[in-house]
Amino acid sequence: LRKGEVTKEYIIEKAAPLFNRKGFSGASISDLMQATGLKKGGIYNHFSNKDQLAVEAFNYAVNQLNLRYAEAVRGKASATEQLLAVFSIYHDVIDSPPFEGGCPLLNTAVESDDTHILLRERAQLAMDDFLRFLGVLILKGVRRGEFRSDLDVKDMAMFIAASFEGGIMMSKLYGDSRYIQTTTAMMKLYIQQQQK
Amino acid sequence: LRKGEVTKEYIIEKAAPLFNRKGFSGASISDLMQATGLKKGGIYNHFSNKDQLAVEAFNYAVNQLNLRYAEAVRGKASATEQLLAVFSIYHDVIDSPPFEGGCPLLNTAVESDDTHILLRERAQLAMDDFLRFLGVLILKGVRRGEFRSDLDVKDMAMFIAASFEGGIMMSKLYGDSRYIQTTTAMMKLYIQQQQK
Repeated sequence: LRKGEVTKEYIIEKAAPLFNRKGFSGASISDLMQATGLKKGGIYNHFSNKDQLAVEAFNYAVNQLNLRYAEAVRGKASATEQLLAVFSIYHDVIDSPPFEGGCPLLNTAVESDDTHILLRERAQLAMDDFLRFLGVLILKGVRRGEFRSDLDVKDMAMFIAASFEGGIMMSKLYGDSRYIQTTTAMMKLYIQQQQK
Repeated sequence: LRKGEVTKEYIIEKAAPLFNRKGFSGASISDLMQATGLKKGGIYNHFSNKDQLAVEAFNYAVNQLNLRYAEAVRGKASATEQLLAVFSIYHDVIDSPPFEGGCPLLNTAVESDDTHILLRERAQLAMDDFLRFLGVLILKGVRRGEFRSDLDVKDMAMFIAASFEGGIMMSKLYGDSRYIQTTTAMMKLYIQQQQK
């Protein structure tokens, strides 16, 4: 990496948690300057505008999470364990979040849906990836005879993702990790009901 | 109502869908001026600041939804039907949303959790009410022997609310009501599994 690339990566790493906490609209230029310790020109040397920085920061945040998900499912014997391992990443979302500010997918989806086409498209692509990731885990469970063969893989992936994001929202709202933990416990029962 | 009160109500009614679409940070003073057709002074005659207007607009939006929920469950015979009637309010969230911009509870929770104490407290109170509302429906179902008597009413209410809000988030993200409809279908199966 050359010096310019290093600075760019550094700005993205500092901007990503800021956007995730405050939102794209809520994070101001002076917030970005404070988070990076750079002047406005020092930031916008590397990005054409706030949109471009926001998209790159979002991609960075999502990639960080995806690494955590991939790591969590590795070595787990069953699809049930793997699906629950995904939830475990947010087990202590309040005191030890996998990414500062909660789930970037949830935060960006909710902020961008009516207002920001570019970020919304990025959030759609990231959600596509997450649903596909869950779908692959479920399908493996079906193929190895762990889950009922008549279940709808896509619907189940969607339901798991919706409950997961809703549980994170609740925990973040109340500042209490018990909400995502309860959601995980309920989801465990639900997933077990899909077993043969 | 006196003239000042009329104007105040009018501003709240116009501001509420704007905040719900664009968010508290995303909606600017000029957005508010455009939505109301009033000048800045004409708006802030009635509110001490943007925070106060946002809180009143949020309360208004939540009250509108609560009326819809109360209406939806009325006359339904069983707790199962009543719980599904709550979901039905968002059945066509894209083309015919119960409130412009999606669920104000979800939107405000996600925006305020790390940044805006006042709105977050209001969102917590509104979520408390929603969880209590669902809890009462579930408890009635337990008491009349419709649901298993050993289920945890609070956990079930929380799980239903989390899945519901997550399903709305998905539909809004993709601009497609099928996500909340699939969530509703999955929730129907889940609720039926709680029957005796």
